[in-house]
Amino acid sequence: MLERTLEKPLYLQLADGLAADIQTGVYPVGHKLPSVRKMSNLKGISISTVSQAYAWLEDQGWLRAKPQSGYYVRSSTAGGEEPRLPVSQPEETPAEVTKADLITGLLEEIKLPSMVNLGATVGDASLMPHRQLQQHFQKVSRYQMHETLAYQFSPGYMPLRQQLAVRMRDTGVHCSASEIVVTHGCVEALTLCLRAATEPGDLIAVESPCYYGFLQLADLLGLKVLEIPTDPQTGISVEALELALTQWPIKLVLLTARFSNPHGSVIPVARQKQLVKLARRHDIDLLEDDIYGELAFIGPKGGDSTTADGAHSSLKSWDTDGRVMYCSSFSKTLSPGLRLGWCLPGRHFRQVVKEQTFTTFSACTISQFAVHSYLQNGHYDRHLRKLRQTITDNFNRFKQEIRRFFPEDTLISCPNGGYCLWIQLPDGVDSAQLYHLARERSIAIVPGTLFSNSDRFDQYIRLNIAVPWSDKLEQAMKTLGQLVAQLAKQRLNS
Amino acid sequence: MLERTLEKPLYLQLADGLAADIQTGVYPVGHKLPSVRKMSNLKGISISTVSQAYAWLEDQGWLRAKPQSGYYVRSSTAGGEEPRLPVSQPEETPAEVTKADLITGLLEEIKLPSMVNLGATVGDASLMPHRQLQQHFQKVSRYQMHETLAYQFSPGYMPLRQQLAVRMRDTGVHCSASEIVVTHGCVEALTLCLRAATEPGDLIAVESPCYYGFLQLADLLGLKVLEIPTDPQTGISVEALELALTQWPIKLVLLTARFSNPHGSVIPVARQKQLVKLARRHDIDLLEDDIYGELAFIGPKGGDSTTADGAHSSLKSWDTDGRVMYCSSFSKTLSPGLRLGWCLPGRHFRQVVKEQTFTTFSACTISQFAVHSYLQNGHYDRHLRKLRQTITDNFNRFKQEIRRFFPEDTLISCPNGGYCLWIQLPDGVDSAQLYHLARERSIAIVPGTLFSNSDRFDQYIRLNIAVPWSDKLEQAMKTLGQLVAQLAKQRLNS
Repeated sequence: MLERTLEKPLYLQLADGLAADIQTGVYPVGHKLPSVRKMSNLKGISISTVSQAYAWLEDQGWLRAKPQSGYYVRSSTAGGEEPRLPVSQPEETPAEVTKADLITGLLEEIKLPSMVNLGATVGDASLMPHRQLQQHFQKVSRYQMHETLAYQFSPGYMPLRQQLAVRMRDTGVHCSASEIVVTHGCVEALTLCLRAATEPGDLIAVESPCYYGFLQLADLLGLKVLEIPTDPQTGISVEALELALTQWPIKLVLLTARFSNPHGSVIPVARQKQLVKLARRHDIDLLEDDIYGELAFIGPKGGDSTTADGAHSSLKSWDTDGRVMYCSSFSKTLSPGLRLGWCLPGRHFRQVVKEQTFTTFSACTISQFAVHSYLQNGHYDRHLRKLRQTITDNFNRFKQEIRRFFPEDTLISCPNGGYCLWIQLPDGVDSAQLYHLARERSIAIVPGTLFSNSDRFDQYIRLNIAVPWSDKLEQAMKTLGQLVAQLAKQRLNS
Repeated sequence: MLERTLEKPLYLQLADGLAADIQTGVYPVGHKLPSVRKMSNLKGISISTVSQAYAWLEDQGWLRAKPQSGYYVRSSTAGGEEPRLPVSQPEETPAEVTKADLITGLLEEIKLPSMVNLGATVGDASLMPHRQLQQHFQKVSRYQMHETLAYQFSPGYMPLRQQLAVRMRDTGVHCSASEIVVTHGCVEALTLCLRAATEPGDLIAVESPCYYGFLQLADLLGLKVLEIPTDPQTGISVEALELALTQWPIKLVLLTARFSNPHGSVIPVARQKQLVKLARRHDIDLLEDDIYGELAFIGPKGGDSTTADGAHSSLKSWDTDGRVMYCSSFSKTLSPGLRLGWCLPGRHFRQVVKEQTFTTFSACTISQFAVHSYLQNGHYDRHLRKLRQTITDNFNRFKQEIRRFFPEDTLISCPNGGYCLWIQLPDGVDSAQLYHLARERSIAIVPGTLFSNSDRFDQYIRLNIAVPWSDKLEQAMKTLGQLVAQLAKQRLNS
């Protein structure tokens, strides 16, 4: 390195560096380079040296000079030279496509505008109060400029925590703001609670099927996972869990009482109380993910919704000694880009604050201020009602279209709320195969295999129903139904 | 950096390295240096160059030539310089951590408006371009409403990553945008990299003293920590690290090449290269925290700044096989509330993206868009220059006030940049006691005890210099000086 820099004139060193940048895409083709004067300032090199370097790059075919404008990248491989190898990006040892890779693939898909997103359960932008949120971002940024750019230390912005405490009352939880920790989305809340209550190597229990993110997170934290039989309507089997607790050193149960992913199940009140008692008897923690908790279908249109008013209690509401940890967020109800969630970590409060302080510090400040301002305006409940009506209508519509287009022996879940529709395909139809075929036709779905560490849900798919109904969507459902029929037929003939 | 290597002849580069070795105690006072011929063989440099280097070191007061015998170390501080801080001598056995509560206390303090914040290294709001950032928040929220509220999946917003790749060029790192992961602040970057490259139970090495957040984070991740002797001017002792590597199963070294916290040290280029080589030889990872990297003091006003242009290379710039992981953020240069950092995880890229996806998902979207918009406008470099000038002036001012108000046997660090001033109090003065007394007088400082798992820095304090100078601040420095004098006197009388 030394010898080389000693030999080469400065302008060539600069030119070399810029050529490397062009090759690696730092300056893409068509991109304008910093002006000679700016580059000279940036590098602390004379203007004439920079000019010489740019002229050389132009000669070699890297740049094109536009009069009165500047230098633009012409090619990412110079003139007559052979294309060079790109800068290496070493990877770890080649790996098989794991379930984690499949999931990052799913996330990529929803970025494609041509895709009909029935995969990741992200509420369509048209269903979210973006215009109002925007106004509140504008407002807090204007009137609380310094505060929105300063640190908000863990456990978070107190006025927002106070609003959350009020909202928690609607779920049956009577808590003070001081028990709440604002987090960077629900997934950070779950991460912090799991890290606070468990050690690597511990065993936790989950519903089966359960949200694939739970399984991935547990794996990353070095936790072992026991899947507990789960009823599509009433959630985790208390009886099976009780048996498992006598056989295994379970440390914590991660579960959803309201509108689980993927079932959409609701744990009845009596069973919720049994679960909390069971946890106390075995001295374990319960970790409740309530991310869809505010998204009950509106009856009687919901048809399958269990209660008239759509109100369901959360597990946390039966907690008497801080062993139920509660997590939720605004990602499904307002915007996922806010990265704003919260938790009530119960007896692990101090440890959760410590974990947050030294791993992510706190949630983003401006998001905390903007959502506080939005909630203060009282828009939220009105928006929720509208959103709940939309997903209720959508559920009925999806059910109807599945009956219309899918083979007769297709079974569907009866969710009481949330964004998920869980579908059992006809015997022998492999959901992974369906996933690939659908993808080729620009339809994203989630294959059931992701919802368990076993292969027992390979015959299932999950659909996201938080999308505005359209002809394109109807067409997509028709295509999906045809693909399923086709795979079922192949299976019969083979 | 380019200029510097061009300017400096080979003999001076060798002399620099040897002077650093003398300072860190590799060659203790009275010790004989290898003969000219032997050094020539060792380094692969001509005999005349080595002779020139030795003669220069003799001139500068480092060495004494004994006829017919050779060159001997005369002093561990050259010429007429001020007495410097000693090299730390930590116990080289792994230990566990205990000081988290004190730290959360510190964070609470900076929220109090009456407090003079010389504690947490948070840049005062008046030094930050809040007005401009505000404008860009307004702009992206208005014109990119839906995008700013949608998910930005890990590894982050591509246009921002492209800008970061260009900025990395200035630190000597040639990378493409695809190698960069946008994170929720520097601490998330460090967390993700540590989690990707280590397992609970592993041993990592750190500088001693080091930023207290490192020790807390390591503890939370179940990592054991070995503290390595560190020079206040030239950073971690390569020799001591090399020795430690032969004795302990070290998995990774977490360190700072530019403007460390608390020393403000810069690792010289030759030693940076040695570190990267060492890492390769022992097949370990280096994790570089470069959060102050863009905050070099501006010379010659900085007085102690080592290079004319204030440019220093980062460790990552010598990485050839992806084993240096680089982390930084905008928390010190723009706003900590943005929660916006980034990392280049090298060979652990895929694992870092996976860790992020399942523990925090991604950084906050609107922050990513606003900072991208701000950087695009080209304000950043102008702002940095101004901020660097302020902290340079502040450093000189702090130094002056310490000489004026503190007892004579107070020693201070000679940082080359960053926000930290590290102060050795007179013998027997306990910094924890000083911390409590200062706090009663509404002055926040950080006691040295936090910067190690041992008690060896109990006689030190760290001051934050990123504050606007004021009469109130001057008064606070006077009060601090009086408290120190008082404690020193009590100690003498007891």
